[in-house]
Amino acid sequence: MAVDLEIVCVGNELLIGKIKDTNAHYLAKQATRLGANVKRVTVIQDTLEEIASTIYEAIARKPQFIVTTGGLGPTFDDKTLQGIAKALNLKLEVNPKALAMVKQKCVEYAKKRHLPTEIELTPPRVKMATLPEKTEPINNPIGTAPGVRVDVQGTVLFALPGVPVEMEAIFNETIVPLVKHAVGSSVFCERSIFADNIMESRLAPLIDKVMSDNEGVYVKSHPKRTENKPHVELHLTIIACQEQMPAEKLVKVAKQLAVLIKANGGLVTVELEE
Amino acid sequence: MAVDLEIVCVGNELLIGKIKDTNAHYLAKQATRLGANVKRVTVIQDTLEEIASTIYEAIARKPQFIVTTGGLGPTFDDKTLQGIAKALNLKLEVNPKALAMVKQKCVEYAKKRHLPTEIELTPPRVKMATLPEKTEPINNPIGTAPGVRVDVQGTVLFALPGVPVEMEAIFNETIVPLVKHAVGSSVFCERSIFADNIMESRLAPLIDKVMSDNEGVYVKSHPKRTENKPHVELHLTIIACQEQMPAEKLVKVAKQLAVLIKANGGLVTVELEE
Repeated sequence: MAVDLEIVCVGNELLIGKIKDTNAHYLAKQATRLGANVKRVTVIQDTLEEIASTIYEAIARKPQFIVTTGGLGPTFDDKTLQGIAKALNLKLEVNPKALAMVKQKCVEYAKKRHLPTEIELTPPRVKMATLPEKTEPINNPIGTAPGVRVDVQGTVLFALPGVPVEMEAIFNETIVPLVKHAVGSSVFCERSIFADNIMESRLAPLIDKVMSDNEGVYVKSHPKRTENKPHVELHLTIIACQEQMPAEKLVKVAKQLAVLIKANGGLVTVELEE
Repeated sequence: MAVDLEIVCVGNELLIGKIKDTNAHYLAKQATRLGANVKRVTVIQDTLEEIASTIYEAIARKPQFIVTTGGLGPTFDDKTLQGIAKALNLKLEVNPKALAMVKQKCVEYAKKRHLPTEIELTPPRVKMATLPEKTEPINNPIGTAPGVRVDVQGTVLFALPGVPVEMEAIFNETIVPLVKHAVGSSVFCERSIFADNIMESRLAPLIDKVMSDNEGVYVKSHPKRTENKPHVELHLTIIACQEQMPAEKLVKVAKQLAVLIKANGGLVTVELEE
């Protein structure tokens, strides 16, 4: 059974083109390679209404996992947890475990800089430890704001920080093992062949044939712009149980496609077998 | 009045991490700089259901503009127009204007390569000219598949190709003038100052004060990772009518913020005035 995963990136900076988001690509690529089916990425503004409605709608689609990035920091526009609370009709409360994590990070920081380690729990620091009730803080091995795990209606939602190194650290420590467990023996495989001297519109029926002959294999054509010469990458992918030998299946399908392309006047370059 | 714009990117290749999407960032940045309010980016798979439900929901949020990228090509998995038709309950039909555009592109292509210019309108070629009824094809100055304009319930939806150069060409030729007209004299301005030696959690109340004192100005803190030293970019933005002198307003607000940061022990670097 497919393990669906959705990604929600929160932050005005992503929508005004200030920051080129790299988190969604990282998460999508890693999750796919773990065998998950990444269904959707949604990038939204830092408003309570946008966050709440997006989370509400994502949960209604019943993916096994939702990963949000951004909006966990100390400033007023870090509203992801408020948005989650609103979407799920949960109260916000200071989480003692999260507060201890934030305090510990501030102490470590002060020590490193030889500053006094009597940490004042200012409102912005307490804010980072204010979580929706019934949720779990996750240790942030790099930054101050903890991640948060929310279990709701069969979906596990993880709220991660927007700073890429922090997001990646929590993803790898906490989420990867869970996704691996959920996908079981499913794996993702991919393989490309390159077609020259044949237009995409002539490749279309050949791709259709190969896909209808080989259930589960997805073939996507990527025309590459070159000087008036058609050059098309054909990217073959499959998510299937290891026992079904998906890598071997892709080799076979790639060969079938190559034969068809050559029979239609195209030239084919096949990736070397790994 | 704010001119809202949503972006929808269609393509499995974006969700499996095969392609790092650049279209959303390009469109978001350009549209923001024209004075539009980019509300959301949604990245979805190439299935009819995903496309139709995403378009349906986007239209229900009533943005002035929706721009989709991808899924206009000749292969079976190019389903954006089918998805739009399903979302809006429109029939698909061969559009004579679009068919002429596709034919013309094929003739040009054949001429360049010194091939016979008797163009056969194969099903994949006809597919690129099969549009939802009551919609308008848009000339693609670079590739074969025309763009499409759909007017629905006060929203103008543009379906653009996924190949970046084609998407950008149609965006600049056709969409930029319309967005400019819609935003009128509104402009987007931005300005950054950099705070050192002060943690983000101490900056938080200073940012709050400056924002509550200056309506319409948005201040976002971007902590930058450096060797144990806090270094935070404070990015000030505003969308306002030219007559309200938004650029001058940002200079004033940046100065106010710098004074507050210094009073709290921080160091400030201010961007040079342009």
